[in-house]
Amino acid sequence: MKKHFSEQLSGVREMVLRMGGLAEQMTRRVIQALVQRDAALLADVRAMETQVNQLQIEIDEACLELIALRQPTAVDLRFIAAAMKIIVDMERIGDQAINITERAESLLAVPPLKPLIDIPRMADIAQEMLKASLDAFVNGDDELAYATILRDDQVDQLKDQVFRELLTFMMSDPTTIPRAMDLILVSRHIERIGDHATNICEDVIFMVKGKDVRHQGPLA
Amino acid sequence: MKKHFSEQLSGVREMVLRMGGLAEQMTRRVIQALVQRDAALLADVRAMETQVNQLQIEIDEACLELIALRQPTAVDLRFIAAAMKIIVDMERIGDQAINITERAESLLAVPPLKPLIDIPRMADIAQEMLKASLDAFVNGDDELAYATILRDDQVDQLKDQVFRELLTFMMSDPTTIPRAMDLILVSRHIERIGDHATNICEDVIFMVKGKDVRHQGPLA
Repeated sequence: MKKHFSEQLSGVREMVLRMGGLAEQMTRRVIQALVQRDAALLADVRAMETQVNQLQIEIDEACLELIALRQPTAVDLRFIAAAMKIIVDMERIGDQAINITERAESLLAVPPLKPLIDIPRMADIAQEMLKASLDAFVNGDDELAYATILRDDQVDQLKDQVFRELLTFMMSDPTTIPRAMDLILVSRHIERIGDHATNICEDVIFMVKGKDVRHQGPLA
Repeated sequence: MKKHFSEQLSGVREMVLRMGGLAEQMTRRVIQALVQRDAALLADVRAMETQVNQLQIEIDEACLELIALRQPTAVDLRFIAAAMKIIVDMERIGDQAINITERAESLLAVPPLKPLIDIPRMADIAQEMLKASLDAFVNGDDELAYATILRDDQVDQLKDQVFRELLTFMMSDPTTIPRAMDLILVSRHIERIGDHATNICEDVIFMVKGKDVRHQGPLA
């Protein structure tokens, strides 16, 4: 027996949430590995990526089937279109967590350059943004989405701060360069996680308002 | 009078091509600015980004309207879904060109570190990949899409080469660090353009074959 349309939509919503939860956990775990210098955690991150990728394919298929067989109305179509866009960003958050994993593998093989302060702070904000973007999606909460987009500036500022600090290390002692480079790249991968959370928020606003907020400059 | 459905699909195809052409030109122009040390070209890149962003919004709206009003069949729906995914990647190629523009502004304000060889080569390949991905899309040519995905390895190899060379510069002379860092970031932005072209190819294959080739590992 065929499921009701509303149940199928709920199914998509749940899968998106599951995927987002995994992407969030990947981010948390890889930074934890880096801060606690615990390489064993990195295997978890790789295992979760496989699940994230699999979920993306399943959600895509479910959405296309819904569109083809159910001919959804404007509101439902916007929900499905938003889901299909959001999972692209979530999959790429997973890719970023894997990029950080690769840098962490290299960083954990050598003595630490410095205690990590700003990088975990950046990662915390990026994770909170991701979590908020998912909440905004499930609750159709465009105000939360707007508020979350504004937090991306904090991530960018921390990234600049990390860059300046590591540049000083490199300039004063060239032997720190490889480690400093790895940390700079980690900060850029975290920045991109913030960008993806921003993209998700924009998709939520489009879903709720039917209005495209991309490319409008500052939302002041 | 309403246009025929096939005309509307052609309209979408043309807009996607126009957008892709702009993204390609942005990439070419910014690397030209960097190699010829001609900052005047950078204004063109910024102007083109505005057009790219506008086209993304227009194409998205046209696609959603087509889905809502025309209830497309499986083949047409896959085409529309592919278009909607492809334009996300093209918009992000535009973002990468803007990121390179920012690095170019800082690099052109100081004397050159070295003649650029590998970076323009990387950019050439990334551009060719983008062009091929668009050809594959309009012609529904999945073989071209497969062949293009394989080229991404060359981009990655050049990126590693650029990184190793610049690391040597930085280690032997710390005053080169800021410029070397900028060039490393340029190479990573080019790498991401190659990644986006790869994503477009994967979407084309899905469109043609109805088969998801993402996350399958090497296509050997």
